[in-house]
Amino acid sequence: MRVGVLTGGGDCPGLNAVIRAIVRKGVQEYGYEFVGFRDGWRGPLENDSVRLDIPAVRGILPRGGTILGSSRTNPLKQEDGIRRVKENLAEQEVEALIVIGGEDTLGVAARLSDEHGVPCVGVPKTIDNDLSATDYTFGFDTAVGIATEAIDRLHTTAESHMRVLVCEVMGRHAGWIAIHSGLAGGANVILIPEQRFDVEQVCAWITSRFQATYAPIVVVAEGAMPKDGDLVLKDGTLDSFGHVRLSGVGEWLAKEIEKRTGHEARTTVLGHIQRGGTPSAFDRWLATRFGLHAIDAVHDGDFGKMVALRGTDIVRVPIAEATAQLKTVDPALYEEVGVFFG
Amino acid sequence: MRVGVLTGGGDCPGLNAVIRAIVRKGVQEYGYEFVGFRDGWRGPLENDSVRLDIPAVRGILPRGGTILGSSRTNPLKQEDGIRRVKENLAEQEVEALIVIGGEDTLGVAARLSDEHGVPCVGVPKTIDNDLSATDYTFGFDTAVGIATEAIDRLHTTAESHMRVLVCEVMGRHAGWIAIHSGLAGGANVILIPEQRFDVEQVCAWITSRFQATYAPIVVVAEGAMPKDGDLVLKDGTLDSFGHVRLSGVGEWLAKEIEKRTGHEARTTVLGHIQRGGTPSAFDRWLATRFGLHAIDAVHDGDFGKMVALRGTDIVRVPIAEATAQLKTVDPALYEEVGVFFG
Amino acid sequence: MRVGVLTGGGDCPGLNAVIRAIVRKGVQEYGYEFVGFRDGWRGPLENDSVRLDIPAVRGILPRGGTILGSSRTNPLKQEDGIRRVKENLAEQEVEALIVIGGEDTLGVAARLSDEHGVPCVGVPKTIDNDLSATDYTFGFDTAVGIATEAIDRLHTTAESHMRVLVCEVMGRHAGWIAIHSGLAGGANVILIPEQRFDVEQVCAWITSRFQATYAPIVVVAEGAMPKDGDLVLKDGTLDSFGHVRLSGVGEWLAKEIEKRTGHEARTTVLGHIQRGGTPSAFDRWLATRFGLHAIDAVHDGDFGKMVALRGTDIVRVPIAEATAQLKTVDPALYEEVGVFFG
Amino acid sequence: MRVGVLTGGGDCPGLNAVIRAIVRKGVQEYGYEFVGFRDGWRGPLENDSVRLDIPAVRGILPRGGTILGSSRTNPLKQEDGIRRVKENLAEQEVEALIVIGGEDTLGVAARLSDEHGVPCVGVPKTIDNDLSATDYTFGFDTAVGIATEAIDRLHTTAESHMRVLVCEVMGRHAGWIAIHSGLAGGANVILIPEQRFDVEQVCAWITSRFQATYAPIVVVAEGAMPKDGDLVLKDGTLDSFGHVRLSGVGEWLAKEIEKRTGHEARTTVLGHIQRGGTPSAFDRWLATRFGLHAIDAVHDGDFGKMVALRGTDIVRVPIAEATAQLKTVDPALYEEVGVFFG
Repeated sequence: MRVGVLTGGGDCPGLNAVIRAIVRKGVQEYGYEFVGFRDGWRGPLENDSVRLDIPAVRGILPRGGTILGSSRTNPLKQEDGIRRVKENLAEQEVEALIVIGGEDTLGVAARLSDEHGVPCVGVPKTIDNDLSATDYTFGFDTAVGIATEAIDRLHTTAESHMRVLVCEVMGRHAGWIAIHSGLAGGANVILIPEQRFDVEQVCAWITSRFQATYAPIVVVAEGAMPKDGDLVLKDGTLDSFGHVRLSGVGEWLAKEIEKRTGHEARTTVLGHIQRGGTPSAFDRWLATRFGLHAIDAVHDGDFGKMVALRGTDIVRVPIAEATAQLKTVDPALYEEVGVFFG
Repeated sequence: MRVGVLTGGGDCPGLNAVIRAIVRKGVQEYGYEFVGFRDGWRGPLENDSVRLDIPAVRGILPRGGTILGSSRTNPLKQEDGIRRVKENLAEQEVEALIVIGGEDTLGVAARLSDEHGVPCVGVPKTIDNDLSATDYTFGFDTAVGIATEAIDRLHTTAESHMRVLVCEVMGRHAGWIAIHSGLAGGANVILIPEQRFDVEQVCAWITSRFQATYAPIVVVAEGAMPKDGDLVLKDGTLDSFGHVRLSGVGEWLAKEIEKRTGHEARTTVLGHIQRGGTPSAFDRWLATRFGLHAIDAVHDGDFGKMVALRGTDIVRVPIAEATAQLKTVDPALYEEVGVFFG
Repeated sequence: MRVGVLTGGGDCPGLNAVIRAIVRKGVQEYGYEFVGFRDGWRGPLENDSVRLDIPAVRGILPRGGTILGSSRTNPLKQEDGIRRVKENLAEQEVEALIVIGGEDTLGVAARLSDEHGVPCVGVPKTIDNDLSATDYTFGFDTAVGIATEAIDRLHTTAESHMRVLVCEVMGRHAGWIAIHSGLAGGANVILIPEQRFDVEQVCAWITSRFQATYAPIVVVAEGAMPKDGDLVLKDGTLDSFGHVRLSGVGEWLAKEIEKRTGHEARTTVLGHIQRGGTPSAFDRWLATRFGLHAIDAVHDGDFGKMVALRGTDIVRVPIAEATAQLKTVDPALYEEVGVFFG
Repeated sequence: MRVGVLTGGGDCPGLNAVIRAIVRKGVQEYGYEFVGFRDGWRGPLENDSVRLDIPAVRGILPRGGTILGSSRTNPLKQEDGIRRVKENLAEQEVEALIVIGGEDTLGVAARLSDEHGVPCVGVPKTIDNDLSATDYTFGFDTAVGIATEAIDRLHTTAESHMRVLVCEVMGRHAGWIAIHSGLAGGANVILIPEQRFDVEQVCAWITSRFQATYAPIVVVAEGAMPKDGDLVLKDGTLDSFGHVRLSGVGEWLAKEIEKRTGHEARTTVLGHIQRGGTPSAFDRWLATRFGLHAIDAVHDGDFGKMVALRGTDIVRVPIAEATAQLKTVDPALYEEVGVFFG
């Protein structure tokens, strides 16, 4: 049996660990052959692939990124996309496809599997941890670790100069990285996309923190928005999805804080360093187990399913269901961590 | 209301994060006062305590160890121990006690709470992750991270000299650190206390690995034992609990490997560096949430309970039940990771 | 004898290590007393100080920032500044002053020592490593380490998406951080303030790198400028010193690269994380030795001098001379590393 | 022109960075071809080699170990060794040889170059930093960084339990790693091979430290010896060089401390993790520059020389002279750091 593998969407620490686990178990236990498609769905669409065997996956466990490359190409949006994918899979004699990706990438897998008879198994990947069917996704722990280390560093510079330091972290639609790294880093304010923030309240927290002779750290998710939408529009630009968004909520917020509190404020935008580099031990563990269970699902003929973490177990859930809705930060959890604000 | 706090047993990254969360929420939300007892149960036994308020817990979140000190003192084994603890708690006007510790420390809390009317809430602490009632304990992720980084380093030196490198990690009774760090570090053999190992099988894996022109890494939990018990007794000494144990299974194993395979082998014993230093972001998150939920349990008057992680939720379970049995590595999980051996 | 200590200018990992070494040796070996002035020259100007003894410096060696605080206050620019400083030092019975700072802060020390009879000893501090009298300054190695780790991470994300990643690092007037971290991180282009860059040349390197099927990393010092000055003025804003500068050379360059090469490009601005957090072992060693030698200079009555590193020795040089000119990257060194461009 | 490259002796972070720099500059600037010999001198002795070109050195900069392998094989100790090396070099048409190694490996290069007309250029490599001709060798900074991080971790566990923690670091003949990491890690006692230690003095320092209510850290180089030589012989074994040595000075010392002071003491032996893994930024910089200057020396026909660091410059010195004597820790430097003992 020949199995295809592809990785789609933004890169994420742990992708290579998934690929390695799939190939190691697939070859050794089940005697499968593997075809790696390049650059996500572009691979099967343009029939661009590479042989994956055990030597090909040697040494990739600790490496960030993906040896298969990635892209946001979507065959559903291409003329004849589905037909071309099916033809190329047939030409390669691929009988099952393991799709590692986020909402968009897995959405294609769900459609292919449910409507077009292409047997797919999904592996969830989102550095933002915003997929509802699984407790955690790999890459998230690494990103939180990098952000936490950065916040640790910002404390000392904030204190030496008694300045506000605003740290903008990833999270366009969900505040998971912000809330985890903000709590772990001892931030004094954490702002997330799920709840529009009140600049006056932020400034009140900051002022009270300075009164305790301590320089505050504000962690803000890139998708966080102030309550007063007009402010957004003034500085706003269109993002790559065509939505109006604040171009740099961190920068904007630092300026507002300076204006309103009189305290110096500086911004650091962590950006791409959050998604690169070697995965944390937690992510290597999770990614490897996802890979092992994905190839088991192929072996069981259990298609249209995605592997997911529940507690310490790996389970299978329907892909379509798993990607149906975004997992956002619960208001109760946000309130729980709010005890550390100010 | 005045609440006591103590930390017992081996130190563990995240203890200070628990203390900080308890005090921050207890003071700010519930208006409690706090007494920190020094060195685990020695504190209430000898009435050695310190005031805990918000300034006292400032800046301790990223610090390893415990500002309260720790010990293995057990009042149940002291003459009149329980009476002295009760008297000193009464003298300090302590109406509830939060006990942060492992099996032994919490065992005392269960007895005090259930049999002696001392209202206790437990917070589980074991770097070995071997407590059955909770998915994870804080400190474990940090230890796994340190061990994984060490294994990453050992790979390069193994390959440069084509040697076997044996890495002995913590885990006297459970192989959690070994299995997680071994998998994450790409070890070629992982040996755990739950399953006696066959030295011949280990040597076969090593030989096959060299045939693939690759230098093998063996991760072995300190409590792992070979099948042939006699070997153990020959090198064995009594440990601090009076059990006969292998004095350095890592050293012993390296010598056996050299003798039987003819390949050079070296051992590294990670030791105390696994339990020191700043907690990982995951552990800071978990420890902080444990602390917040422990003080909530006090506020709810829900005594005799321990906080525990289930999936992403913090729940409460009876202390006595929680500490009743060791959580060991399931044979199915060990088999799952066995695909990477050899 | 009573000795004053102050830290001025931008914060820098290692400041606390200097303070600790001064106090430990001064108290133990020479029996001195110490007064720490707060926030650089603001301290002696406004007579704001704190007692420094051995307990006060316990545990600060690994901590970033400065326990004394810092500022850019310059008594030479204040009415009556020098007189007030002298009066306050006299009132505190301070007989010698150790000044830890960069060009500006040490410039004041030189004037005070040479022209006003205030016995000063200088300790050089610049994270940018641009002081001519010393081989290295502490903080620089830490900053280079952080930047290198970030560049390591950017490689994997660049490769996964075949994108250009531009990493903007500190260095307004000198390219030391850029050249060291760029070389250590395996960057494909390094741009420094000392040599105006040709955007077309940068794009040619990038194109040739993509032809070798490899995604390029560009490391650019914040003070680097393109050859065509008009480009700068168009996007330029006034910086805090009132100079016209490119507001974000990294962002600007990424846009130019996209426009001219057709390849996607992204920017990461490392910002304040480069100067915060625990100092590297190298910086703790250097900072500690600077502190020990500074207090020796006080003991020898060798004032108007600054400690400096030459090879592995700590020497003393006149402060005035040491701060006279900026140490920039030699064209020969830039050419040496140029072998890795493209 | 065809140039040979080999790496001998113990592995060391930065070896790959040297190889990459040699090949990149040699191919691009001088049009050379390269032959990599495997496993140090074993390669030319047994004519075991691999082609080195630019693709072969891609991505190796951040990787620890050496892609060429290493060994302690010495052709001077093999029958006909020199003749066989010369014949194999001739057969491979190698006209110059770059030898990267320590005292032993470079000793062969000196003899070959000076007495046998084989044109060699040396690159110094010793993780112990004990080569007299150069300020630093690459690998040393990485080892010191790893040891310092470990010592940082040991502090928290020492303090939580008020125990002595003994940390044994590398350094058989020179105490450079011990003195640098001990100072950087805030150790309370540092013991080096250059000066036999007095156990009673060590215990006095430890006792005084506990009186300041602080748990002491002892950093001891593996080659450190107590004054009373008999103690050594009692526990001594023969090491791989046939010298009598203390089998674990760390373990021995911890037992003595427990016996003499009554305080609990634990040992951690860092072992091989000190020499593995990715090189620090400092070591990548130094190793890369050594490689660039070594190939320049070949181009200049300047044979029998070794590259060396002096301040911030790379210079050339005769190999024979450079390896003539061990660089040990100066008593004055040891006294300088002694201010932190106790």
